Amino acid sequence: MKEKAMLGARHLLAWHECSDTEWERMVHDAVDEYHGRLRAPRLHRRHIGLVFFNPSLRTLTSMEVAANRLGASSSTIIPGRGTWDFEWRQGVVMDGDRAEHIHEAIGVLSRYYDALGVRAFASGTDYASDRDETRFKAILAAATVPVINLESAFYHPCQALADAATLHEHFSGAQQGKRFVLAWAFHPKALPMAVPNSALLMAARMGMQVTIARPEGFELDAGVMARARQYAAARGQSVTETTDLSAAAADADVIYTKAWGSALAYESREQETMLRQRLRQWRVTAVLMARTNAAAFMHCLPVRRNVVVDDAVIDSPNAIHLLQAEFRLHAQVAILARILG
Amino acid sequence: MKEKAMLGARHLLAWHECSDTEWERMVHDAVDEYHGRLRAPRLHRRHIGLVFFNPSLRTLTSMEVAANRLGASSSTIIPGRGTWDFEWRQGVVMDGDRAEHIHEAIGVLSRYYDALGVRAFASGTDYASDRDETRFKAILAAATVPVINLESAFYHPCQALADAATLHEHFSGAQQGKRFVLAWAFHPKALPMAVPNSALLMAARMGMQVTIARPEGFELDAGVMARARQYAAARGQSVTETTDLSAAAADADVIYTKAWGSALAYESREQETMLRQRLRQWRVTAVLMARTNAAAFMHCLPVRRNVVVDDAVIDSPNAIHLLQAEFRLHAQVAILARILG
Amino acid sequence: MKEKAMLGARHLLAWHECSDTEWERMVHDAVDEYHGRLRAPRLHRRHIGLVFFNPSLRTLTSMEVAANRLGASSSTIIPGRGTWDFEWRQGVVMDGDRAEHIHEAIGVLSRYYDALGVRAFASGTDYASDRDETRFKAILAAATVPVINLESAFYHPCQALADAATLHEHFSGAQQGKRFVLAWAFHPKALPMAVPNSALLMAARMGMQVTIARPEGFELDAGVMARARQYAAARGQSVTETTDLSAAAADADVIYTKAWGSALAYESREQETMLRQRLRQWRVTAVLMARTNAAAFMHCLPVRRNVVVDDAVIDSPNAIHLLQAEFRLHAQVAILARILG
Repeated sequence: MKEKAMLGARHLLAWHECSDTEWERMVHDAVDEYHGRLRAPRLHRRHIGLVFFNPSLRTLTSMEVAANRLGASSSTIIPGRGTWDFEWRQGVVMDGDRAEHIHEAIGVLSRYYDALGVRAFASGTDYASDRDETRFKAILAAATVPVINLESAFYHPCQALADAATLHEHFSGAQQGKRFVLAWAFHPKALPMAVPNSALLMAARMGMQVTIARPEGFELDAGVMARARQYAAARGQSVTETTDLSAAAADADVIYTKAWGSALAYESREQETMLRQRLRQWRVTAVLMARTNAAAFMHCLPVRRNVVVDDAVIDSPNAIHLLQAEFRLHAQVAILARILG
Repeated sequence: MKEKAMLGARHLLAWHECSDTEWERMVHDAVDEYHGRLRAPRLHRRHIGLVFFNPSLRTLTSMEVAANRLGASSSTIIPGRGTWDFEWRQGVVMDGDRAEHIHEAIGVLSRYYDALGVRAFASGTDYASDRDETRFKAILAAATVPVINLESAFYHPCQALADAATLHEHFSGAQQGKRFVLAWAFHPKALPMAVPNSALLMAARMGMQVTIARPEGFELDAGVMARARQYAAARGQSVTETTDLSAAAADADVIYTKAWGSALAYESREQETMLRQRLRQWRVTAVLMARTNAAAFMHCLPVRRNVVVDDAVIDSPNAIHLLQAEFRLHAQVAILARILG
Repeated sequence: MKEKAMLGARHLLAWHECSDTEWERMVHDAVDEYHGRLRAPRLHRRHIGLVFFNPSLRTLTSMEVAANRLGASSSTIIPGRGTWDFEWRQGVVMDGDRAEHIHEAIGVLSRYYDALGVRAFASGTDYASDRDETRFKAILAAATVPVINLESAFYHPCQALADAATLHEHFSGAQQGKRFVLAWAFHPKALPMAVPNSALLMAARMGMQVTIARPEGFELDAGVMARARQYAAARGQSVTETTDLSAAAADADVIYTKAWGSALAYESREQETMLRQRLRQWRVTAVLMARTNAAAFMHCLPVRRNVVVDDAVIDSPNAIHLLQAEFRLHAQVAILARILG
């Protein structure tokens, strides 16, 4: 009775599991929520459990507010901080530090909550496992209520929906054919690929003309690229790649910046660091922005100022990163309303 | 005005402070809550403070949901994580790391909340103090609102009520005379005795035929044993002890497994570890379960798979540990309704 | 639409930014709340974000309850515990440990919450910056919703209002001209000055005759002193200073004890520690209290027993520190009602 189908699928792992119709409806719901015209259900006496295996500011707070806005309650659970640490592996003899298996933890939480939100970042050590979402799927297998992905190894659907709604709002619905540049940026750490993967798929599915500007060695996953190209082709657009950020910026309508690590990090973290350290010039500057078609600057946050983007850009009127962050709330209200309504 | 008597006692330290009538009513309330037929009061504008000196997953989340289900709000407070560390000793010159005395901390929280829930595990170093619940009684002495024990040195009444209601549900109320085996299990650490103490007293008070299967040296407290024997005798049953787990399992209706440390740990942690290390074969296996009367497998969780219980047992249909965990929520709704209603 | 003016100012940094009329109204509102006669608005679907850069027990819990009492929801955010660490400096190249700038963090939270509460203690290393509230003002600059100071470098307005209402209640509104002694106490650490600053200004503004008893070297800030003297003079009272605690206690009506560090700590922490270590006799004892006019003992808590105050004093009927702590809740309900109502 507590279990409800959503969007064809039971859980929200990634939007590509949903039909175009469902995706478009969700984008419109998020935009409607922003304008205060979403007809959302009241979720009184519904309880949402939010499990964060990794840090969060926006996702944690916007989910708490989103739940409350709908009349639901939420609990935030940070494993290892006030709870036990969890074991993920199957069939293991649990005589180490981890006192509880994820199977029981998620099984129990499914008994208390009407839906769960779970953040579990990429392992960074096993590419095939990350690509196949092995960890997140272990959670889905243990859950008996819907699970919302709050960023897994490869996908961040809450961010993707917020980004889509932000673009829809920014372009007043006329984003089709606009030039979207996914611009790789230097960062001191090899960050995971969930956000760039999700942003790429999102932009292609929104009918935008997509360019990925990134150094050699920072290719995104072949499967994700293929899916994005399908989305683009079906909308009369394309996805192109370049190592020339400056050229890519010319006539761009959106500069969506994001740092991510090379897949090389899965084989040798040291080699990846050496590769990355030579790429500090991959930074969004006012000079770069001046080449664009007065492009909007986007970033999912947190962002390192003057490393990923210069103060002059992020403090300019073209920066819409705070609107983008605000849309996290509206997107998640729409998602909760759909899953639990 | 905020202070209300409950169950004869003002606080819930342990169920043996309540009459049989009150205990039985609580079991029925928890079962009724599970079936959605408990007539619970609405606790609007009532606030419950949950203080966890030790980690928790089930208790923390199920108390938050239980409070919300009744319309109350809750705050979760984890001393030392975002708050000060507390001093427990009386009369001490507080010039060390602990910035606040439990007397003030609990006194202040009593001014903000209508009831408190407190988890404070056994010291593990002072047996007499743990048996006498010195720490928990210091909290009760400082509190001016009802306090619910969320697991103290010797007792875990929320678990006990959940277990009782689970058994009532499992046996459709016909648990009288059924064979309940409290089966000691190996664990890498010398765990506290609150759960086995509470499970023993609960099973005896439910009129079950109780056997404690545990190695030499892992006797439960003499006072707890004596009280359990009184409960059993008053119901025409008995409490027996054995060091032969396999024999105990024969015809068991319930295998309730739990690891706990020997009282020897209070004198010498090293000697206790040596004693315990030789007892790794105390594990619930499919072979053991096959000897039973198709017994239900119970465990309070968290449980270490393939250390305390084999995957083959906990993943079998006879395992009712998730139902048992779910009953934590129902039991606590019943307790809050009774204390604050 | 979410932004509302309060008390003339938009944010609550310190009460001296408000007029006497506004201050007096707030004191009466807090007293009315205590007596259950405050006509408070219902703040349904209003969300309050509470950001604690430093530990808290009273402020955190009483703000959660205050928000809920008004029908609002709250989230508690503890940077670095489950969230990212934040950068505060302007114009810095963020290639260190801090992944997010306070500008974005507060900017984003302003999009989710209708008001923010922020605790950010003194740096303890830059006196001019602390005195000018540089850190807190960086938060105010980034915020687009009202911000309530939950203790900054120099001010603690929630404590000040609670203290004022406690005194109003204790003296039945006849606190004018009563003798208020702000009594410095020894403490193992050089604590910040926000509470003594706020207590001094509060007592002077309540028309009390104020004496500060403190050792040489523990003078409060000259600007704060000047403002307090203005408040006192305007009410026909005075603010005096002495290094003789015993003399100050004679005929005192209130002993408000508080430890704080010397401004010397900003130049040399070692020298300040040496200075402070010789002052262990600055402790509130029963002998001292016997010299007073049956004075009320006050302390903002947490308090170190038998270091700052003897058990015999804090456990006596004259100690009103728990009432004072309770007034934190009532004061904050009044503040939230005023800011968001």
